[in-house]
Amino acid sequence: MKKIFLGLMFVSSLAKAQINQDSIFIKQISNEVLQNGEAYKNLFYLTKKIGNRLSGSENFNKAVQWGKQVMQQSGASNVFLQPCTIPNWKRGAKESVSVVSINGKPKAFSLNVLALGNSLGNAKTIIAPVIAVKNFEELEKRKEEIKGKIVFFNYAFNDTHVETFKAYGDAGKYRRSGASVVAKYGGLAIIVRSLSHSVDNHPHTGSMTYNDSFPKIAAVAIGLQHADSLYKWTQQSKLVLSYKTNCYFDKDAIGYNVIGKIKGTEFPNKYITIGGHLDSWDVGEGAHDDGAGCVQTIEVLRTLVALNYKPKHSIRFVLFANEENGLKGGKEYANQAKLNNEEHVFALESDAGGFTPRGFGFTIGADKLQKIQTWLPLLKPYGTEFLRMGGGGADIGPLNEAFKTPLAGLSPDSQRYFDFHHAINDVFEAVNKRELLLGAVNMTALVYLVDKYGL
Amino acid sequence: MKKIFLGLMFVSSLAKAQINQDSIFIKQISNEVLQNGEAYKNLFYLTKKIGNRLSGSENFNKAVQWGKQVMQQSGASNVFLQPCTIPNWKRGAKESVSVVSINGKPKAFSLNVLALGNSLGNAKTIIAPVIAVKNFEELEKRKEEIKGKIVFFNYAFNDTHVETFKAYGDAGKYRRSGASVVAKYGGLAIIVRSLSHSVDNHPHTGSMTYNDSFPKIAAVAIGLQHADSLYKWTQQSKLVLSYKTNCYFDKDAIGYNVIGKIKGTEFPNKYITIGGHLDSWDVGEGAHDDGAGCVQTIEVLRTLVALNYKPKHSIRFVLFANEENGLKGGKEYANQAKLNNEEHVFALESDAGGFTPRGFGFTIGADKLQKIQTWLPLLKPYGTEFLRMGGGGADIGPLNEAFKTPLAGLSPDSQRYFDFHHAINDVFEAVNKRELLLGAVNMTALVYLVDKYGL
Repeated sequence: MKKIFLGLMFVSSLAKAQINQDSIFIKQISNEVLQNGEAYKNLFYLTKKIGNRLSGSENFNKAVQWGKQVMQQSGASNVFLQPCTIPNWKRGAKESVSVVSINGKPKAFSLNVLALGNSLGNAKTIIAPVIAVKNFEELEKRKEEIKGKIVFFNYAFNDTHVETFKAYGDAGKYRRSGASVVAKYGGLAIIVRSLSHSVDNHPHTGSMTYNDSFPKIAAVAIGLQHADSLYKWTQQSKLVLSYKTNCYFDKDAIGYNVIGKIKGTEFPNKYITIGGHLDSWDVGEGAHDDGAGCVQTIEVLRTLVALNYKPKHSIRFVLFANEENGLKGGKEYANQAKLNNEEHVFALESDAGGFTPRGFGFTIGADKLQKIQTWLPLLKPYGTEFLRMGGGGADIGPLNEAFKTPLAGLSPDSQRYFDFHHAINDVFEAVNKRELLLGAVNMTALVYLVDKYGL
Repeated sequence: MKKIFLGLMFVSSLAKAQINQDSIFIKQISNEVLQNGEAYKNLFYLTKKIGNRLSGSENFNKAVQWGKQVMQQSGASNVFLQPCTIPNWKRGAKESVSVVSINGKPKAFSLNVLALGNSLGNAKTIIAPVIAVKNFEELEKRKEEIKGKIVFFNYAFNDTHVETFKAYGDAGKYRRSGASVVAKYGGLAIIVRSLSHSVDNHPHTGSMTYNDSFPKIAAVAIGLQHADSLYKWTQQSKLVLSYKTNCYFDKDAIGYNVIGKIKGTEFPNKYITIGGHLDSWDVGEGAHDDGAGCVQTIEVLRTLVALNYKPKHSIRFVLFANEENGLKGGKEYANQAKLNNEEHVFALESDAGGFTPRGFGFTIGADKLQKIQTWLPLLKPYGTEFLRMGGGGADIGPLNEAFKTPLAGLSPDSQRYFDFHHAINDVFEAVNKRELLLGAVNMTALVYLVDKYGL
């Protein structure tokens, strides 16, 4: 008994010493990032000196070169560019949708719209009546009325979801697949209420896909104030709209994942991946989506190097290509990993905005999630209040598919995200320096713990 | 045994039913606030239609009338104005501090400054050398050099504190008492680095006090960019400044606490108080400080009435006068409570900005704090991650002094607060609608639990 007791005491004080050591190192991480962090300065350059960077654009290529350089300056032992074929969608000339008559009386009222990503322009301007529906159920009921009309989906964000990503998940289907549902019934084009609960009138773009069985009709998102006005008008009057978008696909381009590395000391062939995506939509500056995730990824690298941390595992820092409208970067990364027989033990993405951190969501076995709850007290002082099931990131998803690699995604506070998401106001000024840096603190701490203790 | 077991089962299922009932009601609170909340609309009026509202200003009086009206509209059973004598500090003509020579060579560089609240202007423009010190320790060492000079305290916010109020607490003494320390050594005026870690150059005002034993010298805060420039210059060169502020005290004015009420059904003579402060500094719009707390207070009222909640205790909703430069409203509220032999069982204040809620800080017995941890799971879905020791609010502090009333303060995320605090950019646009509303959700839920279960 005595022996066991002493043994337990030893284990217990060892565990305490361990926790204490971790706690000290994580405080060093926090101090390093909050005092010397370069994420905000890097975000300034990416957003203000380069700007938005849609796959296939000149800006995207500039961002690749920038990413490579900053990774090198931040201490990566090597940095390489991983090529992949990416779609090359172009907005073309500015889209235009306006009310041209109300109850037969001429009107000229321009609506604040933005064509959806991957949608195709209509060859000739459409002049047609608009029919407003609240949801797919209403569309089904009124399917006989759709032919020859423009359909306006006015499905609003559900404000009662405290976490805004739930509202996004709920409303997202109208943007993603609304066009083909309408085309099936002979509709000419669609307008989708922006996926947002903002108080302004900026339209929010985002990707959509066509069902190849139906005509590929044009699709735009509309700002919320105009969505409310348009809906109200359509309930009282007959409106005719003029509708023109000019989007098209140019021939595929070559894009690159930017990959920096710190080599592992114990398991150099086992990889931890940390990333964000370098591409953005072609409006605003892609500051929260996902400039923040890119500069946080680089900040994790910079901080581990600055603190002279020698990881057990090799750590890769990846700025992924083409998340927004193809995911070709994430897919190629996993594909190359398979071809090279790499072992991927963990991947972490930041792609939910540079807001104050609140936790991490995981795609991981329940037993492992249970185990790492013991890390929570170490992370709490820096804002992480949960390590919970559900999360990861689009770009690292293929790693999980390929290797069952456990995934995590940084979960910043979500209240402001859909004010900026895919809109013209997703700019540098919308990001707070300390909130951005604190995200990097928590990411670095989590990576440290995963590297040290495994999953 | 069987009886006890069945008894325990009964208690346990009763407790579960209770928790379930609370959980349902708190979800109703959340839905009501997030869907029908008027806090944001009310804040718009208070900030944009009235504006900043320093004690003694015409705007403050307008805000009192506004508060009374909105409380009535929000369903208070009665609303009254509680008078109190308030100081009447005036900024006077715009302050001006500029560099007039560097190493004897003429220069004209205007510094971005704002006189500190309650400071007195200097009768004649001071033209004098400036000496920069990092802290009081350096001032002590160099006390022989102070006479006839302007002293610049360049004590920076400590960025390594994750919670920014700690940095504020740490650096606050330079603003509050720096002037008299300098006056003691014959200094002519002071410049204090703004209490902020903002990335802009706005100066942040705030209250200061004089030690009556020394001359009452003028005092200003300086924007951070100019603080950095000025400090750098003083390390390399001899600078002479021109310095003029024009502040003074007008004769005391009458201010009012605005007090609305819902009468208790079981304990009508036991009071729960919820409040924010109606006054603000005379720059910006007092949106986060503390328009947010005022409209959240009114939102709690509106929501409880809208849900037809009949509280056990009487609940008072108070917009306090004169928090910023005298606390006369809070003191008078407690004073009148004493005169009327009122019993005050709990008070809650929101005065840390309208940001996303993270928890509540309490001034309360440890046993009671322990007890209410059982409420945490009910509040977590809405953002409250802690119920911890330490907190309350300046305006409700006197209630605790008078009656040992348990206090709580809403603790929103603190990262952005000192970007706006007491500065020209504390405007409506700096407040996010959902973050503001979520604060009110959590406040209402806490008040409901305290009312139902006591403390």
